Amino acid sequence: MPTTTILLLTAMVCCPVALAEAQAAPALMPVPREISMGTGRLRIDSSFSIGFDEVINRRLERGAARALARIAARTGLTITPRSGSNVATVRVVVRSKGEAIQTPDEDESYRLVIRPDGARLTAATAVGALRGLETLVQLVTPYGDGFVLPNVTVDDAPRFRWRGLLMDVGRHFMPPEVVKRTLDGMAAVKLNVLHWHLSEDQGFRVESRKHPRLQQMGSAGLYYTPAQIRDIVAYARDRGIRVVPEFDMPGHSTSWFVGYPEYASAPGPYAVERRFGVFEPAFDPTREETYEFLDQFVEEMAELFPDPYWHIGGDEVHPRQWNDNAKIVAFRTRRSLKDNEALQAWFNQRLSRILARHGKKMIGWDEILHPELPAGTVVQSWRGAEYLGKATGMGFASILSAPYYLDQIYPADQHYLADPLPTGHGLTPEQEALVLGGEACMWAEHVSAETVDSRIWPRLAAVAERLWSPAEVRDVADMYRRLSVVSLDLERLGLGHEAHSARMLREITGQRQNPELEELLLSTMPATFGQRGRIQKTTQLTPLTRLVDAARPDPWLRSRMLLLANDRSEPARDELSQIFRGWKALEPQIVRLADSVPLAVDGLEAARALAHLGSLGLETLDYFERGSATAQWKETARARLAELAQPQGLLRLAGVEAVTLLVNAVPQPAE
Amino acid sequence: MPTTTILLLTAMVCCPVALAEAQAAPALMPVPREISMGTGRLRIDSSFSIGFDEVINRRLERGAARALARIAARTGLTITPRSGSNVATVRVVVRSKGEAIQTPDEDESYRLVIRPDGARLTAATAVGALRGLETLVQLVTPYGDGFVLPNVTVDDAPRFRWRGLLMDVGRHFMPPEVVKRTLDGMAAVKLNVLHWHLSEDQGFRVESRKHPRLQQMGSAGLYYTPAQIRDIVAYARDRGIRVVPEFDMPGHSTSWFVGYPEYASAPGPYAVERRFGVFEPAFDPTREETYEFLDQFVEEMAELFPDPYWHIGGDEVHPRQWNDNAKIVAFRTRRSLKDNEALQAWFNQRLSRILARHGKKMIGWDEILHPELPAGTVVQSWRGAEYLGKATGMGFASILSAPYYLDQIYPADQHYLADPLPTGHGLTPEQEALVLGGEACMWAEHVSAETVDSRIWPRLAAVAERLWSPAEVRDVADMYRRLSVVSLDLERLGLGHEAHSARMLREITGQRQNPELEELLLSTMPATFGQRGRIQKTTQLTPLTRLVDAARPDPWLRSRMLLLANDRSEPARDELSQIFRGWKALEPQIVRLADSVPLAVDGLEAARALAHLGSLGLETLDYFERGSATAQWKETARARLAELAQPQGLLRLAGVEAVTLLVNAVPQPAE
Repeated sequence: MPTTTILLLTAMVCCPVALAEAQAAPALMPVPREISMGTGRLRIDSSFSIGFDEVINRRLERGAARALARIAARTGLTITPRSGSNVATVRVVVRSKGEAIQTPDEDESYRLVIRPDGARLTAATAVGALRGLETLVQLVTPYGDGFVLPNVTVDDAPRFRWRGLLMDVGRHFMPPEVVKRTLDGMAAVKLNVLHWHLSEDQGFRVESRKHPRLQQMGSAGLYYTPAQIRDIVAYARDRGIRVVPEFDMPGHSTSWFVGYPEYASAPGPYAVERRFGVFEPAFDPTREETYEFLDQFVEEMAELFPDPYWHIGGDEVHPRQWNDNAKIVAFRTRRSLKDNEALQAWFNQRLSRILARHGKKMIGWDEILHPELPAGTVVQSWRGAEYLGKATGMGFASILSAPYYLDQIYPADQHYLADPLPTGHGLTPEQEALVLGGEACMWAEHVSAETVDSRIWPRLAAVAERLWSPAEVRDVADMYRRLSVVSLDLERLGLGHEAHSARMLREITGQRQNPELEELLLSTMPATFGQRGRIQKTTQLTPLTRLVDAARPDPWLRSRMLLLANDRSEPARDELSQIFRGWKALEPQIVRLADSVPLAVDGLEAARALAHLGSLGLETLDYFERGSATAQWKETARARLAELAQPQGLLRLAGVEAVTLLVNAVPQPAE
Repeated sequence: MPTTTILLLTAMVCCPVALAEAQAAPALMPVPREISMGTGRLRIDSSFSIGFDEVINRRLERGAARALARIAARTGLTITPRSGSNVATVRVVVRSKGEAIQTPDEDESYRLVIRPDGARLTAATAVGALRGLETLVQLVTPYGDGFVLPNVTVDDAPRFRWRGLLMDVGRHFMPPEVVKRTLDGMAAVKLNVLHWHLSEDQGFRVESRKHPRLQQMGSAGLYYTPAQIRDIVAYARDRGIRVVPEFDMPGHSTSWFVGYPEYASAPGPYAVERRFGVFEPAFDPTREETYEFLDQFVEEMAELFPDPYWHIGGDEVHPRQWNDNAKIVAFRTRRSLKDNEALQAWFNQRLSRILARHGKKMIGWDEILHPELPAGTVVQSWRGAEYLGKATGMGFASILSAPYYLDQIYPADQHYLADPLPTGHGLTPEQEALVLGGEACMWAEHVSAETVDSRIWPRLAAVAERLWSPAEVRDVADMYRRLSVVSLDLERLGLGHEAHSARMLREITGQRQNPELEELLLSTMPATFGQRGRIQKTTQLTPLTRLVDAARPDPWLRSRMLLLANDRSEPARDELSQIFRGWKALEPQIVRLADSVPLAVDGLEAARALAHLGSLGLETLDYFERGSATAQWKETARARLAELAQPQGLLRLAGVEAVTLLVNAVPQPAE
C-alpha cells in the first residue's frame, strides 16, 4: 500500500476527543488502492454538476443522476442536472461503455482528481466510472455550514474481479424491493455480483412458463415473474452488478419435484420441505428425460439471465435415493462410475454441455470438484479455504465463500480478516491467478424480508473491502471507524439496518417506545446460526418475530468495548465502568417489564447474564486500580466468562470478549 | 351510529393500567358503519387462508395475497396461499369485479362476518372486498402466545364517495417508490383518490413525447416517464384507488413556459421558478394555438390517466400578464368578458370541451366557480367551507379540502373534527347530495422525499376516518388511541413516519445516537407553514435538513398531555410533573450539545422555552396541590403561555395547549 494511503488513514483515526469531527470526515470504504491528499477543498453548492465529455452513455447518465440525487439529499441542496461537460463541476471521461454483457474481465479501474476549482473522473469503462462516482459520494464532507469535497487524487482498481453476495431466496422469499435495495447497497461498496440462490428444498422462486408446476406447486405463491427478473437484472446492470442465477441440483431440489416428481430418483410424491438440513430428494441422473427437461429449463431461463455464468449448486447431495434405486446403481456399474461422486461428475458433464449449448459457463459449490469436471468450470469454496487450494491446484478458477457466511452471525472483523490469499497461502502464482475473488453468503434459514437488511448490513461492507482493497488494508479499529460512517450512508439508500432494532421492537410489541429492550439489544447479539438451530429447532415455519430477530449481529458496543479494553487509559476505564453499571441497572428493569410485555421474557436470561458480566467487569476494573489480581481469581473469572460466552436464551452478550481482554490484562503479582 | 359501535369503542378506551392490553386489541380506523361483537375467536395459524367462491378476479387475488403476506409478517407465521374457497378460513364472495375504470360511483360496501370456525367477506364489487380485507388485517389481535380474529360482524360502507390525498410533486419531486408506499398507506385507511399535482411554477413532472421541452426544460430532470405513470396508475387500481392528474392552468404554470414561452401571456423568456407564492405567468387564453397545444397534450396524457376526471387547477391566477397584454384586453372587450374571472371562465369552457373530446370531466379549485362554468364540473374548495356552499348552491358537485391541508402542520384532531357537513351546515338536501367528499392536501413547499412520510402519516388516517366513518364518530381521545396503533400498522407497510426523527437525526448529524435531540423532538413540532415561510424565507433551494425537518407535526406527547391535563387525577398529575421536570433537565444538555453538534443550535430556543414551560407547569401543579391560584397569577401565566405558543426558532412546543388547560383549571379563591 502506498504511503499516501497510510497517511490519510492515520489522519482519520478516531480518538475520543476528536470523535465528532472524525466522523464528519469522509470515510472511504472500500479503501482505494492509492489516494493522496492536497490542501484546499471544492465547495458543493446548488450549481454542482456532473458532465460528460463523451457521447451519452445512458447507464452512466443514470448513475450520475443517482449520485447527484444522493449528494442533494446529503447536503440538503437542490442540485439541478446540467448538460455539457465544459460547465460541469465534475467532468467524467470514459473510453468505452464497457462490455455489452458484463463479465469478470470488466475493467473497473478509475482515477478521480478533485481540486478546489473542479473535479475529473476518468475510467476505461462506464463501470469504472460508476465505481468512481461511489467514491465521490463518500467523499462529501461537512465543512463549516456547508459541504465540500477534499482535494484528493484517487487511483483505484479492485484487487479481485469477482466480489459477490449470495442471497438465498429459497428458504425465505425476498420481495423484489428487498433485492433492489440490496443492490443499491452493494453498488455503494463496489461489489459486482449478485449470486441469486433461486431454488431450494424449501421453495422454487422463479416462474417458468414452460414448466409452470415448478412455481405453482413449489413456491407457496412466492416467486419472481419474468418481468420482475428482467427488471432486477436491468437494475443490477445499471449499477455495474452481474446477476448469477443458481438453481441447485442434483440435491437441495425437493421443491422441483413437488410438481415434477418424475425427475427425482425416487417415486415421490413430494411436498415442499419445511425443515432445514440435507434431504434425500435428488435428480435422477440416469434418465434422458431429466436432461431434456433441464435443457428446456435452461433455455427458458437463459433468456432472463444474460450473465455468462450459471450456478448449478451441486452441494450436499444425499446418497440415499441414488443408493436405493436399483436402476441408478446398475447405471453406475455399467458406466464404471466408482461412487456417487463419480455419478455426480457424470451428471455435471451432461449439465455442462447443456449450459454450453445455451451460452453459459458452469459454476458450482466445491463438492463438484472432481477429475472429470469440465475445464473452464468455476468452483466456489464453502467448506474451507483448503478447497480453494485443491480447486486451483486442479486448474479450476475459484471463488471463496467459506469465511464469509453472514448467516453464521459472526462479527464483521472476523469476516474482514479472512483473506482469500492470506500471507503464506502456499499457492503457486498460477493458482493465485485462478483465485477470482469471493462471495459473502446470506443463507436464509433464520432471516425474513423484515430482518434481512440487519443481517447483511453493515457487515457486508467489511467483506466488500476485503475483496476490493489492497491486502495490507486490515486495521480492524480503523475498519470499524469507517464502517460506522458508511453504515449511515447505506441507511440513506433506504436500507433498514440502522433502524432495525427500534422498528422490530415496535412491530413485535405493538408499542411505540421500548427503551429497556432497545438498551438490552445494544449490548447483545443473536445466537450463532448453529446455536439457534439447536436451541430452537427452527424450520421454515418458525416465526422470526422473537427478540433475537430484533437484535443485530455485531452491535457497535462490541467493537467500542474492544477498543476501550485494549486502550485501558483512565477515560477508557471510566467509560467501561459506566457500561458495566448500566448492565447491572438494566436487569431489574427487564425483569419488571417481562410482567407486562411478553417479548421481554425472551430477554430475561440475557439481562441476568449481562448483570453478572457487569459485576465481573467492575471487579476486574477494581483489580486494575489495586494493581494486580491473583492467578486463582483469574482462573475463576475465566470460568465465569466461559459460561457467559454461551447463548443466554437466543441472545449472546456483546461484551464478553472485551471483559476477557481486561481480565487477561490485569497484572499478576510476582509469586 | 348504532349502539353496538359505541359499545365496542367504550370497551377499547385506554386507561393507564390497561394500556398494554388495550394497544394489543384491534383498533379499527376508519371505524366501520356498524360493528357488533360476539364471544370466542378465530385462531390464526399457518393453515390460515383466503379463498374465493367466484371466478378468479386477479385484482382481488392480488389483494388477498397482500393481506395474507401482511398477516404473515404481523404474526410471524408462514402462511401458504391455498386455492379453493371451500377449504379457506376466509371465504370471499363478490358479485362483480367492479367498474372497468373506477368512478366515484363504485360500490365500496362490504360485510365481514368472523366466527370461531371461519370468516366470510361479501361485497358487491372487488373494491368493496379490498376494503373489507383491510378491516380483516386491522382485526388481527395478539391472544395468548398467538394471534386471533375476534368474533365480529361488520357492515360497512363509506359516508363519502370521494376520499383523497393530493400529492404536490411539483414543488418537490417525489420518486415513484414514495408515491407507491403512499398508495399502500392510503389503501390501508380506505382512501380512494390520489390527486396527483403534476405541474407547478417550480416543476413540470411528466414526460411528454409530443412536447418534450416540457420535461426537458421544466423539470430539472425530475419527472415521471410514461412507463412509471402506467405502473403507478396500475398499482393504485390494484388497491381500489383512482388517480386524478392535475395540470394546473392558466396560472401556476411557469414551468410549462420554460420550453414553450409562446403559450404564455407575455413573451418571456421563462425560468423554472424557485420562490414560492403566486407568480405572473399565465396561459394566453386568446390564442387558438394555446388550445391546439392543450388538445394535443390532453390527448397524449389521457392515454396514461384512465380516470374519468381531469383536474385543471385554476387557482390563484395572477392578473398582471392578462392586464398588461393589449391583445388580451382587446379580446376581453370584444367578447364582453367583464373581468379576468370571466376570461378564465371562457378559458375553462374551451378547456372543458377539449377534455370532453378526450372523455374527461373537469374538476378545478374553487376559483373556477363562475356562472359560465360548464355543468358537470366538480369544484374543490380550498379557501374555506363556505365555497362548498356556494358551489353546491350553483348546482356543482364539490369536494372539500380547506380544513385538510397537511402542509399547514396542524395536529390530527384539528383536521379530524372538521366535517364536510358539520351539524347545522345549512345546506339543502340537494346541496348535501352534491358534496362528494374531501381531499387532504400535501403541498410540497416544505417537504422532500426524505420527510414526506412524516408529514402525511399518521395524520392522514384521521382525515380518512372523517371521510369514511359515520359523522357521529368524533371522540378525539379514542381517535388518538386508535391512531397510535394504526400508525404502527402503517409503518409495517414500509412508511417511514415512525422511524422519522431518529433516522433524520442520524442522517443530518452523521451520528448514530442523538438521544438529547430525539428527546427534544418528542416534545416539539415544526413551525406552521406560514411561520416557517416568514421566518426562513423558504424557496425550492432551501435545504430541508434542519432540525425542524426531523420533527413531526403532531408528536404523541401532545395528545397524551391533553389527556392527562383533562384528567388531572393524581397519577395524571404525577406523569405531567415528570414530563415538566424532564424538560428542565433537557435544556442544559442541548446547550452543551450545541458546542459540538451544529444541528443542536437549531434546538436552543426550543430547549430554553421548554424549560420555561416546564417551570410554569410545575408551578401550576403546585397551585393544584394548594387548592387555588389568584386571578393575577393566572393572567401572568397566560401571558407567558402566549409567548411560549410562538415558534421557538423553527420549532413549536407540543405541551402549550395542555399547560393552558391546566392553568385554566386551577380553582380561583372566592374573592
